[in-house]
Amino acid sequence: MKPNFSLRLRVFNLNCWDIPYVSKHRADRVKRLGDFLNMESFDLALLEEVWSEQDFQYLSQKLLPTYPAAHYFRSGIIGSGLCVFSKHPIQEFAQHIYTLNGYPYMIHHGDWFCGKAVGLLVLHLSGLVLNAYVTHLHAEYSRQKDIYLAHRVTQAWELAQFIHHTSKKADVVLLCGDLNLHPKDLGCRLLKEWTGLRDAYLETRDFKGAEEGCTMVPENCYVNQQELEPFPLGIRIDYVLYKAVPGFYISCKTLRTTTGHDPHSGSPLSDHEALMATLCVRHSPPQHTASPPCGPTECSPLTSVLREAWAELDLGMTHAHWWANLAGYVVGLGLLLLALLCALVAGGEFREVAILLWTPSVGLILGAGAVYLFHLKEVKALCRAQAELQHVLRRAREAQDPGPESQPSLFLGQQEGDRVEEQ
Amino acid sequence: MKPNFSLRLRVFNLNCWDIPYVSKHRADRVKRLGDFLNMESFDLALLEEVWSEQDFQYLSQKLLPTYPAAHYFRSGIIGSGLCVFSKHPIQEFAQHIYTLNGYPYMIHHGDWFCGKAVGLLVLHLSGLVLNAYVTHLHAEYSRQKDIYLAHRVTQAWELAQFIHHTSKKADVVLLCGDLNLHPKDLGCRLLKEWTGLRDAYLETRDFKGAEEGCTMVPENCYVNQQELEPFPLGIRIDYVLYKAVPGFYISCKTLRTTTGHDPHSGSPLSDHEALMATLCVRHSPPQHTASPPCGPTECSPLTSVLREAWAELDLGMTHAHWWANLAGYVVGLGLLLLALLCALVAGGEFREVAILLWTPSVGLILGAGAVYLFHLKEVKALCRAQAELQHVLRRAREAQDPGPESQPSLFLGQQEGDRVEEQ
Repeated sequence: MKPNFSLRLRVFNLNCWDIPYVSKHRADRVKRLGDFLNMESFDLALLEEVWSEQDFQYLSQKLLPTYPAAHYFRSGIIGSGLCVFSKHPIQEFAQHIYTLNGYPYMIHHGDWFCGKAVGLLVLHLSGLVLNAYVTHLHAEYSRQKDIYLAHRVTQAWELAQFIHHTSKKADVVLLCGDLNLHPKDLGCRLLKEWTGLRDAYLETRDFKGAEEGCTMVPENCYVNQQELEPFPLGIRIDYVLYKAVPGFYISCKTLRTTTGHDPHSGSPLSDHEALMATLCVRHSPPQHTASPPCGPTECSPLTSVLREAWAELDLGMTHAHWWANLAGYVVGLGLLLLALLCALVAGGEFREVAILLWTPSVGLILGAGAVYLFHLKEVKALCRAQAELQHVLRRAREAQDPGPESQPSLFLGQQEGDRVEEQ
Repeated sequence: MKPNFSLRLRVFNLNCWDIPYVSKHRADRVKRLGDFLNMESFDLALLEEVWSEQDFQYLSQKLLPTYPAAHYFRSGIIGSGLCVFSKHPIQEFAQHIYTLNGYPYMIHHGDWFCGKAVGLLVLHLSGLVLNAYVTHLHAEYSRQKDIYLAHRVTQAWELAQFIHHTSKKADVVLLCGDLNLHPKDLGCRLLKEWTGLRDAYLETRDFKGAEEGCTMVPENCYVNQQELEPFPLGIRIDYVLYKAVPGFYISCKTLRTTTGHDPHSGSPLSDHEALMATLCVRHSPPQHTASPPCGPTECSPLTSVLREAWAELDLGMTHAHWWANLAGYVVGLGLLLLALLCALVAGGEFREVAILLWTPSVGLILGAGAVYLFHLKEVKALCRAQAELQHVLRRAREAQDPGPESQPSLFLGQQEGDRVEEQ
């Protein structure tokens, strides 16, 4: 690698709103997206909500001359909706499916069926290892009463951990996607603090696009205007985030977003706005050394956000326990009802009614049993994320007070079963 | 780190057969295991099938003076059963829950409810980064007609990928666990070829224990003798595997297994045998340079095992499609039945019978619908693993034939939808 090495990387990100039978003007929008991507010839195009594999195949064929490498991340029942088109060969890919992703019985929300995930691509560009991640977190259906908050925070933590553990040999890390998180939301802060990723919108000096970088704007004809009422300018939930290891410096030269229309002022490509970033990677002069993600010791923002996340997951745990208990009681009642019905049948009284009620009560037991098991699983997943958060906090305390006499209690803390300690 | 640096690592691995209400003499065995671990003072004790968190808590307390760091990997509904006790501080941990892990309707097998996983611990020992993994793959209930083979191969691949992507900065990698794979089984070969891990039993010059290193032996009174009938000496399904990066050399100085009794010839600690390895890590003299996992180009064993795995997953896919189709037909029949029943009720004929059958037919539709969705998810997961295997194979072809004229077709191959190419 030459000392005056410099790499320019043009990146495109869009939540495509490509949902069969639901999204308006799907075929036309996918066609125009393909035309636009071909014309612009980005290095990487990272897409979310491509929930039709046929549309991915169509785009693959259409983009083949410009983007010879492509990958669709399969997961869940419907699919993660994530896919990527690259001008450069993809060396490796991997994915992580989030442990928590809504509830199967919330069919009208549908997130559970998608298997939301994070996809990883490893590219080698001019001798540099680039780890590019694409993700889509659980949707926020109500900001006032967000029953999925604990799930989204857990997803943000799993995303941060996946990046942390898989990018240890990467020179540059890039994360694009629809986080369904506003910039100051807990999940977004947790992700940025733990990974050290920086926000292209906040970093760039050359931004053109929707006001305040919003990626869902009222000007977009596909957006549900009612949902955006509390936010007259719109909301910013889609991101381009990046970082480089010490020795390299990465900056966002330009950032563009669409503004409720397609890039040529036609009808929009999606209900979200597209992000188009030009990133520049070069050797880091001493004054520009990209700071590595700061360890927990010296960074109180990290410690504080970890504690906040821990508390949020604790609320989620209370909620999950409540549902598991309720479902457990229903199973118990169902069993009692079943026993009563059997007694009635045996006794010959109300025989027809008893037989009639027998099947619904079995259904009740099975249904409530499934809900019970699901929420037990939710408790386990929240508990796991809490243990990981707690571990990071403990390592911070150990680093702050490494005296030998304090070690036994610290190590005690490292073991499980003393959750109260963090409260 | 000094040039004459040398690190001795004593490792213990055991599938503990700690299943509440099922396993015999559980409390006694857990107590004796704790006593033994305390007495031996290993560097790391990696345990599987600890399916009682109370037992983990008990061991944590008992082992606290000798193993100050401990962690239980929570997942699924019951838990992964994986836990670890370490003499050294655990810097970081993470886990990956396998995407495929049996079928929820196979309640008597129970694997689905456990959320089988791989756990990762990062330790810093004398300036060396050690990534220690512990895992437990899906059980093999019938070797002749193994309906879980595709799932276990997928798990082996996910395990290999998890190690591959998370150990890039590790100096030494250690994997212990119950793989439920015989040494020459496809999953075992796939794991070893793709990660470059070496088998302590095959590498050590000082082995003492059960014949042929078996870890389930007929001498063990807890073992189902009928299951071991085809294998008079027993089977080897628990492993200690390791590797080091170039610059370091790791070897297995001694490997011991129990032989159907506890280490002091009392009644066994579990239905599996314990593995006790003494590993030695030192700077690598040129003649001993640990070879990194060989790239796919030059290694035909890797290429061949990748192809074999791809074909096995294809069989699994056919199976999953068959079940999804069957369940789909049942849903269709259930809907027809429901319509017929509604017509009968409306017409007033056989009203009571129709009402009686209404609920079971709704139950049939819901049940078959759940099975349909489950197998759709299975198809997606198998398809994802196939795509990853195919990608590695393609990279091998590209590396073998990098001529510019061959690139378009190679890149075409990199895109999805041309699965037949690999058949």
